[in-house]
This record gives sequence, C-alpha cells and structure tokens, in this order.
Amino acid sequence: MSAALTDSQLEALRDEIKQQGDEIRQLKESKADQALIKEKVAAMLAKKKLLGELGIEKPGKFVLKCPKGTRDYGAKAMAVRESVLKIMTDTFKKHGAETIETPVFELRDVLLGKYGEEGGKLVYDLQDQGGELLSMRYDLTVPFARYLAMNKVAAMKRYHIARVYRRDQPVMTRGRYREFYQCDFDIAGKYDSMIPEAECLKILDEVLSTLNLGQYVIKLNHRLMLDGMFAVIGADDSQFKSVCASVDKLDKEPWEKVEEELIKERGLSPDAAERLGSFVRFRELNPDLDNVAVLDQMMQIPELAANAKFKQGVEEIKLLLTYCESFGVSNAVRVEPSLARGLDYYTGAIYEAVIPNGLEGVKDEEGQPVGVGSVAGGGRYDGLVGMFAPKASVPCCGLSFGIERLFAIIEAKNAAEQTAVRTSTTQVLVASAQKNLLAHRMRIVGDLWSWGVHAEMTYKANPKLLNQLQYAEERLIPFVLIVGEQELKEGVVKLRTTETREEKNVKLDELKSTLAQMLAL
Amino acid sequence: MSAALTDSQLEALRDEIKQQGDEIRQLKESKADQALIKEKVAAMLAKKKLLGELGIEKPGKFVLKCPKGTRDYGAKAMAVRESVLKIMTDTFKKHGAETIETPVFELRDVLLGKYGEEGGKLVYDLQDQGGELLSMRYDLTVPFARYLAMNKVAAMKRYHIARVYRRDQPVMTRGRYREFYQCDFDIAGKYDSMIPEAECLKILDEVLSTLNLGQYVIKLNHRLMLDGMFAVIGADDSQFKSVCASVDKLDKEPWEKVEEELIKERGLSPDAAERLGSFVRFRELNPDLDNVAVLDQMMQIPELAANAKFKQGVEEIKLLLTYCESFGVSNAVRVEPSLARGLDYYTGAIYEAVIPNGLEGVKDEEGQPVGVGSVAGGGRYDGLVGMFAPKASVPCCGLSFGIERLFAIIEAKNAAEQTAVRTSTTQVLVASAQKNLLAHRMRIVGDLWSWGVHAEMTYKANPKLLNQLQYAEERLIPFVLIVGEQELKEGVVKLRTTETREEKNVKLDELKSTLAQMLAL
Repeated sequence: MSAALTDSQLEALRDEIKQQGDEIRQLKESKADQALIKEKVAAMLAKKKLLGELGIEKPGKFVLKCPKGTRDYGAKAMAVRESVLKIMTDTFKKHGAETIETPVFELRDVLLGKYGEEGGKLVYDLQDQGGELLSMRYDLTVPFARYLAMNKVAAMKRYHIARVYRRDQPVMTRGRYREFYQCDFDIAGKYDSMIPEAECLKILDEVLSTLNLGQYVIKLNHRLMLDGMFAVIGADDSQFKSVCASVDKLDKEPWEKVEEELIKERGLSPDAAERLGSFVRFRELNPDLDNVAVLDQMMQIPELAANAKFKQGVEEIKLLLTYCESFGVSNAVRVEPSLARGLDYYTGAIYEAVIPNGLEGVKDEEGQPVGVGSVAGGGRYDGLVGMFAPKASVPCCGLSFGIERLFAIIEAKNAAEQTAVRTSTTQVLVASAQKNLLAHRMRIVGDLWSWGVHAEMTYKANPKLLNQLQYAEERLIPFVLIVGEQELKEGVVKLRTTETREEKNVKLDELKSTLAQMLAL
Repeated sequence: MSAALTDSQLEALRDEIKQQGDEIRQLKESKADQALIKEKVAAMLAKKKLLGELGIEKPGKFVLKCPKGTRDYGAKAMAVRESVLKIMTDTFKKHGAETIETPVFELRDVLLGKYGEEGGKLVYDLQDQGGELLSMRYDLTVPFARYLAMNKVAAMKRYHIARVYRRDQPVMTRGRYREFYQCDFDIAGKYDSMIPEAECLKILDEVLSTLNLGQYVIKLNHRLMLDGMFAVIGADDSQFKSVCASVDKLDKEPWEKVEEELIKERGLSPDAAERLGSFVRFRELNPDLDNVAVLDQMMQIPELAANAKFKQGVEEIKLLLTYCESFGVSNAVRVEPSLARGLDYYTGAIYEAVIPNGLEGVKDEEGQPVGVGSVAGGGRYDGLVGMFAPKASVPCCGLSFGIERLFAIIEAKNAAEQTAVRTSTTQVLVASAQKNLLAHRMRIVGDLWSWGVHAEMTYKANPKLLNQLQYAEERLIPFVLIVGEQELKEGVVKLRTTETREEKNVKLDELKSTLAQMLAL
C-alpha cells in the first residue's frame, strides 16, 4: 500500500476532484458553454487518473487511514488523556455529581434546529437503512436536555465525558477534529439565583489550578447585560447573533477592525457601533476598576441603568460575585462586558476561562506560545429542556472543558519539559537469568498478581536477560525480579531497581512483605 | 407528547407498516393479483392512519425516545457499570496493559468482508454527505487490527472498553442492544506458543472470581482440533461455519436435535453426524476423565491421531494446561471438544467462560435463574492484521467480556439482595438549621472541598433543615454538618451521622482534623 503521496496529499487530491465534480454539475445545470464543461471534465479526469496511477483507487485496494478529521489515540495519548480526565472526574465527584451516558446518535428530529443554520450543516447523518432517521450527537448539552425531558428528571447534577461529531473543516495540527471529546458538568433544577453558577465557577477554578497550566482568567458576563447594551444602541433581535460574533473577536483583534465589521457586515450605524464600543470595552478602557466598580460605573450610564434587562443582569452578577467570595474562588474571576459566546441558547450568566499568555517557556514549532486562548466555558440555559417537553421547565447551567485543547497543551508541556509519559502501571517485571525457568517465572508473577502487584513477564520461553532489562528501562518499570538457578537453590530472588541498577537478594518467603512495604500495597 | 400507545407499541406498529410496504413492493414486482395488492395497501393505510390519529407523525411533532435498540444509562446504571469496569481495568492494568481509542466509525472498506455475509448486513452506514464512505464499528477487534497494521505496531498488550454498533433485532429485556459496550483485552506480537493464551485465561479467571458471580467454567478448545474432527468425518471447508454453528448449540440443546440439524440442514450423512457426535461429545460421554485424560483418550482414536492438525491442537492445549497450572489458574478450566464459537478468524486456542447454573437465589420476573450462559470468550487470531498489511505478520490472541450481560446479572443481583446503589461519592452534606446562613454554608463547604472532602450543599438560599436531612438519607450521604446560629457563636458546628442519627458538636478549628480522621483522608 505504498504511495508516492502522503495521506494528506491524497485527501487534498480527492477534495479537489470532488469540488471539480460539484462545479461541473453546476455548470451543466446552468447550461453553461459546452467547451468550458468539456475542459473542466478533462481536468478532473486527469486528477482522477493520477489517483488511479498511484494504485490507490483500484478495486480491492484502499488507503489504510482513519476517517477524515479523526485520529487514533495511542497508548501515550491515552495516558495523557486519562491523567487530565481524572482531575476533572475527581473534581466533579468531589462536588457530588453523578454521571450518565446517552446514545452516540439521536433521532434526527432531536438535533434538528438546535444549533442554528451553520451548526445544522455540520451534523453527521446516518444512512437510511430502513427505520428511523438518525444523526450523530453534535454536543452533550442537547442530549442532556433530551434525557431530562424524556425521563422527567426535574433536578440533577451530572457530568458527561464523551466524544461528539462535527463535519467541520479539520485543522488537526491545532487540535480541531471532526470527532472530539467534550467534558461537561451541568446543574439542572429550580434553585435560588446564582448559587449553581457559583459552584460552576468554583469547579472551573479548582480544575484549572490543579492542572497547573499557569495564570488563567475566568471572564464573566450576562446575557441580559448584552441584551440591554444591544437594545440601547438600537440593534434588534435578529442582529443578536451576528453582533455577538463580532464582539467576541475583541480578545483577538483590535477594536477598529471589529468596529468596521459591525458597520459593514452587521449593519450597525457608525454611531451605534461607537456606542457599543464604549460599552463592551468598558473594562479595557478603565483598567483600574475592579469587578464591582465596573458594574457600578456602567450603571452610571443613564440609558443602561434605565434598561430593565441590563439592570437585572448587573444585579445577578453582583450576587454571583459575593458567592464567589464565600466559596473562596480565587481572584481569577473578571467581569468582562465584551464576552459574548456564540450560542443562542444562553439566558443568564456566561463565563469563559482563558490562559491569556500561554504556558511559560512552552513554544510550538513556529516559536509561538502554546495554550493561548479559551480552555473552558459555559453559562445558564433555561429554555433548552422546554424545547423537548413544553410543559416542563427545568432551568440549567453548566460548563464544558475544551478537552482536546487541554490535551494539546499538556502534550506540548510534556515535550518541552521532556517528561516521560508512562503508558502502563507495571511495578515489577519478572525476568529470568538462564534458560528453562519459565515455570518459575510464571509461578512468581502469578503470586505477585494475587498480592495485587502490577507485574509483567515477557512471553518468551527463554528470553535473554539483557532484552528483559532493556524492556524494563524503556517502559519505565521501576523494579525487576530476576529468577536464577543458583538463587532458586538458595531460596532467594534478585531484586533490581531499574533507575539505580542496584541489585539485592530477597528471600522468597519474605518477597510478599518486602514488596508490600516497597510498593505501599 | 402524550399517546395512548407505549413507545415499544409504536415501534412495533412502525415495523409492521414497513414490513407491509416491503411485501406490497414485492407483490407489485412479481405482478401479483391486483385485488390482493389493493387489500394489502388498505391494511397498511389503516395502520398508518392509526399513527396519524395518535398525533405522532404530524409535522413538527415527534416521539421523545432513544433510537431503536439503544438506551440511556442513568446514574444508577452508570454506577453499576463503573464498578464492573473498574474490576476489569484494574485487572488489565495489573497485567501491564495499555489502552487505546479508535474512531467510532471507520472507512467502510476497513470493515468490508470481515464479519461474513450475516454480520455485514448488520453494519450501520453513515450517509454519504460528500467525502469518504464511513460505517460504525461493529466490534473492537477489527479496528485494533487496523490500528496495528496502520501504525506498524509489531507488539502490544492493550485493552479497549467502548461501544460498538449492530443493526440486529434488539431484545432489550435480555440485554441485547444495537449499541452496546465491549471490553476487550488482546496480546499482539510474535511470542512463544501458548504463553499469551495462558495470561488471557489467567485474566478471565481473576475477573470472574473478583466479580463473585458464583461458580463458573472456562471451556477450552482449539481450532485445529475442530478442523481435524471435521476432516476425519469428511466435512469440507465450506461447511466449517455452518457445522460449527450447530455444534455450538450443544450446551443448550440435546444431541438428537443437533444431529438432526447436522443431517437435514448442514448436509452431513447420518454416519458422519454420528461420528462427529462421538468426538464433540467426548467429554460429556466420559464425565470421569480430567482435562489431560480427555485429550489423551481422544488421541487413542486412530483417525484423529493420524490427523496432523488435530495432533498439533492437542499438543498446544496440553502445553497451555501446564502453563495454567504454573499461573495458578483455578481448576475452572475445562477442555470441551464441542466449543466451536462462530467466528471465522480464530486460528488457534479458543475459550469461553460460562456460568452454568446461574446466580444462586437470583431469579428473573418469570422465575428463571439469572446469568446462565456465556459471559466472556476469545481465542487466537493470527491472520487478521495481515488482511490490512499483507506483508506484516502480527499474531494476536485476546478475550472479550460480555459486559452488557454482566451488567444485567449484577443489576439483578443487586435487586435480589436489595443492595442500595450509590450514584455519587458525597461524604458530607453541609446543611443549615436556620435562615440567612448561606454565606456560612458556602464558606464551610468551600473549606471541605479544599481539604479533599466530597461535599455538597443544597442550592437554596434558605432550605428547610428537614428537606436537607431527607436529601442526605435518600442519597445515602453518610454525614451532615449542620450550621446553626447558636453553634456559630460558640465556634462549633453539629456533625450528624445519617445512619444512626447521632449528633455531636465539633469545634470549627478542629473540623479539618476530625474529618480527616473520620474519612481517612
């Protein structure tokens, strides 16, 4: 299955052929000039021939690869993934959360109309093989809402870690895949204002400080404050999403560029855009103000103060800030009127955690700092469950960690710090020094397993000692028990410490207690 | 979304309509009598009307359900599932295994032709949305082989726990789903004969004894022994699979019935069938023989002894039995010449764990014992990786636990023993006795989290004490810390043990050490 082209080149070639095919169909439909169509067809066939010459598309042959935008997680990637997810599940469990699992696909109607026009296009559909029409889940939030509505659950604190599917253009070098993990925590139920939100921020703070990825900021805003600001400048509801999308770029682009986009593409008047700038940049323009002062001074602007939505949003955020203090959430929380987040379904507080400067000392291949940007986000969405069960009102708020991004950051950090990643938990390798000791090795490794020791032996009947010691060193197995003829006669076994290469004899009848002490069993 | 019919009734109705539609199409194609076709169409329309009258199929309405053959795993099911999987992952890790994850779908060509004609029909395909043709994984073994071939991995000991997809007829009451978990452990690599198999049997034995589901038997046979027996009776290769399928029924059906099937459906002569019976029932007909004696006495049959494949199979199984002894695998292992297992790709030893009598004292709703039957199986498959990389030879053997079945058994056991299943790990509920103590509760629960205590508080500003205590009792939270005005003045907090309802005061500045001792933090 050798080929002169790399997998990604082959993929690009196929994409080109597909595009050309689409173009030709359009030309035919629009009854374009026949000569032009002929030319395009010839170009496409030439590309197809290229594929054929490479022996790739011949019947019975295929390129051995993962589907576009997906990847295998090898043992090393899984070890990193498990260490990150353990921090999250431990934290969720510490906060009393339960977990659920839902099917990887849903009835197509369940997902329909939940992700806007853009999102809807990215949903993977299953083929109609006679039966129901199904689609792959696009996130974990809509299935959670469907679960609550279907099972008539009125209150639940749950986490859910699983993969979701989006037919997006993958950028795998930057950790953007078509199949990727999400890690969600949500609190569903009718409770008093801002208490569940406070616990969400607390969890964000705990996870990020435990992950130890350097300085982070938790930005905080409120949907009603955004609604109020937009109302004051005269933007209507239909503009909400597009204006949000522009405002949300403020953490990456200068105001001038955002302002231009607001006027030229979003249809705001220059006055309205300028006004909006003075609101959403309030924090940026008043860098000395603290969280409460930002809110208080924005309330000094008469039109904002007069807007009922804005006022309610401010009051809720102020309440949330007092709860953060009681919970001892670090001073990472920062009120940020420009935080917009794309999703339509948020109804209350919204938040997003960012690592503003990236990891200290960790650069990618192009010398850019690694880890800059958003690593988690969430907010309140009170209307989603009602879309499935109109009579049920189950208010929810939650948060989602950008797991793939966190994996990428930690993998880069490990690489920069040359941290060796262990892919197994083996504590002892049982080796032999001479031939014909297989039965003895087996008996000893069987004892070790029965004592709870994580142990391995090589699957050769008569392995060379050097190969066994090398295996222990490569796999970072801390200890090797060496079975030898002479030692067996003396009723001992040799215990070797891999790192120091020190060896000492241990009596076979003291092996259990020695290992128990050494490995803290 | 109320309806007079249950979801399963609706599903049945839809299935009937679909079947009627298929029938009508066939009648039309075969140019059947027009009156008959009209009658059938009328019957189908009546059923369709029934659906319509129920308001189910009106545009914009849909039944809130999971896709056919799938289910949600609620918190309780997940708690059981996690406890079972933990036993397995702990055992796999104790044996030094790594884990990997592969995409939930594969290129269609990867799965094509790997599951025989029957299996191929059950594969879920994704819709062609422009791009590659994809199908959902059908098991974890073929993706593992694809992974090894694609990444040129020559040796690996890995486990993989994930869901797979089969468009089978679901029987959800008996734990047969279209989306279900598999739990696989495999050893890939060129090693000495039967050593990896011995570790697979050791793992089977460890997991089943830890699960504590009563007496189990690990049946053991060899593909080459089956090949030899079939050759001696004159069955040819094309009959292998169908004859295996019949022989495999011997643990559920009497020989007479299997014999009839072999003659009438599989095309064996009465003589050949009788001869085969004397081979595959050798253990059953000689109940006093032990494992080695069964093999030795079968080798006394001249035609079997003269068959090179049979002889090699016997020698390998005898070697495996000596390794089992060295590993201290319990005497659960039982040579069973009738064990056939369906899968074509096995090339060596095959094994299957069964719980022959079901769980003691655990009956299902119909009074039948729960848990009878196969709970795990596996074997050697040396040719699979080569199907992806013809030049690579990566011999493999492994095992797969029937997780859904084990879940069902343990859920039935819990129900029979009235075992309460905890769905969270909360150790302490922080409650308040009066109003206006929210900030105090928050501060204390924040302290608890920082000490590593699994703690919760209700999300009400002023909850009633009784409701909070009830929450702790319902959720089996062992301790409640009650914050009260008077107690705060005295610098204490009340610690209540949920089970005994005992209460005692603890000084706030001794809270950390008290909890640390009590909860063994």
